[in-house]
Amino acid sequence: MATSRNTGTGAPGVRRRGTELERAILDATLEQLGSVGWTGLTMEGVAARARTGKAAVYRRWPSKADLVADALRSGLPTPEEPPDCGSLREDLIQLCERLRAAMYSSSGCALRAVIDECDRTEAERFVEIIVGRVVEPGKRMIGEVVRRGIARGEVRADATGDLVVDVVPALMMYRHKVTGAPLERSDVVGIVDQVMVPLLRPRTG
Amino acid sequence: MATSRNTGTGAPGVRRRGTELERAILDATLEQLGSVGWTGLTMEGVAARARTGKAAVYRRWPSKADLVADALRSGLPTPEEPPDCGSLREDLIQLCERLRAAMYSSSGCALRAVIDECDRTEAERFVEIIVGRVVEPGKRMIGEVVRRGIARGEVRADATGDLVVDVVPALMMYRHKVTGAPLERSDVVGIVDQVMVPLLRPRTG
Repeated sequence: MATSRNTGTGAPGVRRRGTELERAILDATLEQLGSVGWTGLTMEGVAARARTGKAAVYRRWPSKADLVADALRSGLPTPEEPPDCGSLREDLIQLCERLRAAMYSSSGCALRAVIDECDRTEAERFVEIIVGRVVEPGKRMIGEVVRRGIARGEVRADATGDLVVDVVPALMMYRHKVTGAPLERSDVVGIVDQVMVPLLRPRTG
Repeated sequence: MATSRNTGTGAPGVRRRGTELERAILDATLEQLGSVGWTGLTMEGVAARARTGKAAVYRRWPSKADLVADALRSGLPTPEEPPDCGSLREDLIQLCERLRAAMYSSSGCALRAVIDECDRTEAERFVEIIVGRVVEPGKRMIGEVVRRGIARGEVRADATGDLVVDVVPALMMYRHKVTGAPLERSDVVGIVDQVMVPLLRPRTG
């Protein structure tokens, strides 16, 4: 990825390496999304913001949608291990708080704003980013927390249906849409205490 | 609502009463939605289909969105009593099957298609129709089934949190969006058996 052919900024004669330039372009894209939105964003505008030529942008990203998709992905958390606090309730609350943070991160908000502004065909691509980078990893982590809970005896052994791990993302998206307001920590605690813990715990003991 | 000033169809000299003409206009609107969609629908096209003059349409519905909103509402089920089959599981399955039927009725499908086609500001109005005529009544009926279950001892007494009744609509919408395919009865049975029954039943017995 390193190349000395990139035009750069900063000290005269210093050219930015490939990855630095790409980072600058992606950051400029996120900045443009925030300031002029999907409709106002142009490859030229991004290039100017990144202090590079538009050829450097087009070389890597053939279209606006490709560029915006990569920029949005770059701002989302990378998959990680689920929290391990020693109790089902605490693990679930911490995990849901991570999902909530991703939803309302600048990438999360930019993603939703872009989906609102662009047409439906383009939007599908961005919805896939949410599903692939936030929802699916979230569900895997919930599954891991549930399995640990089963091993500890905090979760009933038959809590392994597919739909069980869907409940958290389904409720978070639903509450966000229905209330029209950002989710609060109290929403997360409600989801865990009113739904997930009763759903998962063993029947006696 | 009855008036003899409406132009009509059928036998010469016979004018349709107000409610009949309105019904004809609403049906014509649903037909036009199905054939030419939101974008192609015009007040003139609807009037022609209903074999009336466009004044008769504009008199009652000042805008396309008003007309389409009423037409879509007219095709949705009216609120009713929840099923009472004598068991929590059967009541829930029957109730969810009603919600599923509404989602995939011609009005339900037309609603989703319109929401896809129109711009987001207009779409909010139609989303409100779904919430007001399908989701909210569905939640009230779920609440009633839960209360009956508590009275019968099939449901734990503390299953009264707001979020408990949100689980069904949240999961149905989520599964519909994520699979991209219409929900089947097996999806409903899964929601009831994997999630709602374990969530609601008492801890012992």
